[in-house]
Amino acid sequence: MITKTVDVAIIGAGSAGLNARREVEKAGGSWVLIESGDYGTTCARVGCMPSKLLIAAADAAHQIVEAEIFGINAKQVTIDDQAVLSRVRNERKRFVGFVVEDTEALPKEHRLIGRARFTGPTTLQVDNHTRVESNSIVIATGSSPVIPAPYDKIREHILINDDVFMLESLPKNIAVIGTGIIGLELGMALDRLGVDVALIGRSNKIGPFTDPAVQWSVADILGSRLDFRLSTTVDQADVVPGGIALGWNDANGNRQAQTFEKVLVAAGRRPNIFDMNLEAAGVQLGNGTVLDWNPQTTQIGGLPVFLAGDASGHRLLLHEASDEGRIAGSNGMAYPNVLSHVRRTPLAIAFTDPQMAVFGKTYAELDPTATAIGEINYANQGRARVMGQNAGLVRLYADRQCCRLIGGEMFGPRVEHTAHLMAWATQQQMAIPEILKMPFYHPVIEEGIRTALRDLTEKLKVTGDCRCEDLAEAPGT
Amino acid sequence: MITKTVDVAIIGAGSAGLNARREVEKAGGSWVLIESGDYGTTCARVGCMPSKLLIAAADAAHQIVEAEIFGINAKQVTIDDQAVLSRVRNERKRFVGFVVEDTEALPKEHRLIGRARFTGPTTLQVDNHTRVESNSIVIATGSSPVIPAPYDKIREHILINDDVFMLESLPKNIAVIGTGIIGLELGMALDRLGVDVALIGRSNKIGPFTDPAVQWSVADILGSRLDFRLSTTVDQADVVPGGIALGWNDANGNRQAQTFEKVLVAAGRRPNIFDMNLEAAGVQLGNGTVLDWNPQTTQIGGLPVFLAGDASGHRLLLHEASDEGRIAGSNGMAYPNVLSHVRRTPLAIAFTDPQMAVFGKTYAELDPTATAIGEINYANQGRARVMGQNAGLVRLYADRQCCRLIGGEMFGPRVEHTAHLMAWATQQQMAIPEILKMPFYHPVIEEGIRTALRDLTEKLKVTGDCRCEDLAEAPGT
Repeated sequence: MITKTVDVAIIGAGSAGLNARREVEKAGGSWVLIESGDYGTTCARVGCMPSKLLIAAADAAHQIVEAEIFGINAKQVTIDDQAVLSRVRNERKRFVGFVVEDTEALPKEHRLIGRARFTGPTTLQVDNHTRVESNSIVIATGSSPVIPAPYDKIREHILINDDVFMLESLPKNIAVIGTGIIGLELGMALDRLGVDVALIGRSNKIGPFTDPAVQWSVADILGSRLDFRLSTTVDQADVVPGGIALGWNDANGNRQAQTFEKVLVAAGRRPNIFDMNLEAAGVQLGNGTVLDWNPQTTQIGGLPVFLAGDASGHRLLLHEASDEGRIAGSNGMAYPNVLSHVRRTPLAIAFTDPQMAVFGKTYAELDPTATAIGEINYANQGRARVMGQNAGLVRLYADRQCCRLIGGEMFGPRVEHTAHLMAWATQQQMAIPEILKMPFYHPVIEEGIRTALRDLTEKLKVTGDCRCEDLAEAPGT
Repeated sequence: MITKTVDVAIIGAGSAGLNARREVEKAGGSWVLIESGDYGTTCARVGCMPSKLLIAAADAAHQIVEAEIFGINAKQVTIDDQAVLSRVRNERKRFVGFVVEDTEALPKEHRLIGRARFTGPTTLQVDNHTRVESNSIVIATGSSPVIPAPYDKIREHILINDDVFMLESLPKNIAVIGTGIIGLELGMALDRLGVDVALIGRSNKIGPFTDPAVQWSVADILGSRLDFRLSTTVDQADVVPGGIALGWNDANGNRQAQTFEKVLVAAGRRPNIFDMNLEAAGVQLGNGTVLDWNPQTTQIGGLPVFLAGDASGHRLLLHEASDEGRIAGSNGMAYPNVLSHVRRTPLAIAFTDPQMAVFGKTYAELDPTATAIGEINYANQGRARVMGQNAGLVRLYADRQCCRLIGGEMFGPRVEHTAHLMAWATQQQMAIPEILKMPFYHPVIEEGIRTALRDLTEKLKVTGDCRCEDLAEAPGT
């Protein structure tokens, strides 16, 4: 047993942990970086990157079908699933390689391999080989997929998103459990790659939306393209010859059963904050997350313990994890002189088709009496129609008092781009008339956004400029 | 001969003229709208819309070829050129139809058909049927393709962009004269639709760029994909059996000749300001444009004559024409109390692949000693690589004093979207550190822009925030 004494101990070498380390280094501090698994971030290994690789292939296959509307016809289309999955694995390996390389380039004496457990607010035990004493600790342990009850007993037979990217061939059919972002992205991609996909959701909600009008548009458009089984709680899952047999009661109370070659569980992810003896640090847990966590400082209560990335359970997104890592690293060093940081305007995107995005305040977070809503239905939007991608509904929210854009829920062509435009305008607290003074080229998808902004102007009954004093309030929390 | 007396006479029922009319109407003024040709705007009839339709089909054909890198193989790809062109014509007809319908819905007594000639600063003669007396006149007569010397004598045998969209089948081969935006968009689209395309340019410049580094990237990337004949001045063009024979001296002084089935002249457009007897209004012409025109007021000198849209020769773009039309209409009504309007940050986009965009100040307009330049080469950008679109160079410009973004030249994947983001940031006079505080999702093309912004931060040696007082200066002129 050896003892290491450092300024900041960082648990987890993912996106948050690596960013925390960089800040500590920048501030001239000493550190250890503790990792219990393989190097490489969730994003590069099993998240954003490989899923976008699978989607790129799926979109390529889909565009061949769609080409017909333009007068281009392809016969004998072969989806070489081994080649598709091989590109996914190779590119994924390349992306992961960069991260692993960078991490392994860090001085060996600062890197510990093993599982960390708290023995006090500033002391850790790593496996049974090292004791770490520090001024502060950063928890950046990431998240793991949730495996609901009927599947946990057959864990080794089901797929989670991690496994999809290791497949060497595609199944004939698959049940995707979960209609959130991960389930939709992977389910839609597999569908386009020729797999027979059933998307099974516990609720009747598809995607990240809270706005009923947008939810309706999603149900309408995707409902006709994919095989959804909503309001369906699977209570039986058994390994049988040829796959996995699932059983559930349908909406009419009738017993249903179906056997799928594969089952992909995409029922959400939860913070990795258990089995660390957090109690020894005085950290309180509740409802699967750490209580009393401050997103502006990343500090837990008044403790010398900081929490960043997926482990916070706050927003399980790479760019948020990076920010939280940076904040945790610099506050870990500065402790007890902890600073509040302004967070970016929230932005989440799903790479479905049409794409989905939510920025700023969601519909569920609005005060209806203080809000105006503008919208654009992309069914007849010029450029979208030109590209044969004219489907979707985008709703934008503005506060009635200052006419500022405060959020939106977006379902439509290429909203990954227009959501950036809107999130930036929100963070800058721009008023709607001010946004309308910006250049909109022609013919572009962005003109659809202008239509929604003009609709907002009508709803706000703005006659001239309308803008309150700049508020000191943070854009995101 | 009848005489009409109105507040504002508007010559030209295109995008600028129609917008001018709306402003006059809004201000309670009386008007006539004079059109010498068919109703329907340049954009809908022969410009942005039909070219984007052709490009959409071309991209669909190209994506089938590209699908191979993802593991998707299509054999027997048929480009049904009659179906392709039929969709272009039908959709074009639909877009034009909306404009024509709106225009014909205007009261008949306010619409004049015929060619207008000035008989004084506020009087017009329309053909030989109507005399118009007004308080002010708006010229919104649009632009026409330039037909250089060797082609003018065989005008009825060559194509201009207008004609391409009326073709019922595609030629086997074509010479595209001009490597500006129109020539590139159409040339690249035809190439992808299976036509053998030679792109012939007088200079060695491809596209709208003035930045040598971006020009180099374009030459490098497009040079290997398309058949360019640069620094080539065609001096002979003759109708021969099977097409048109072109002749020129090559860079080594050797005589070259080649026969093409079709020749498309895309050598720029010029304002329609001749044959209107503008001299009678006191308007001075020079270098193919109206002299002493103010883009903030659209007024010509101190005259009661306003000039808007392509006819100004300023920026031949729909969104600029719409703005100028609005300004001209409201100032035409307000004359002599003419107001200056803030113009939007300049933004021009070419829908090539990779796409091209220029916003704010171009490289040619920079003061090199006062400017820092940041860049991103898209060859290894994460998301671009995922999509197999990792090619291009984006250069962003900031002023050293205030660290503000002031412009950029962009060649890369989906810059139609990131150019909006950047043009908006420029119009808002955002400093580079401020832009870096905005949300960037992962993995997105926008992260490439962040790389260029971070590069700019290094070049500016920004240590903290850097921002001057807001300037009253107009964003665009």
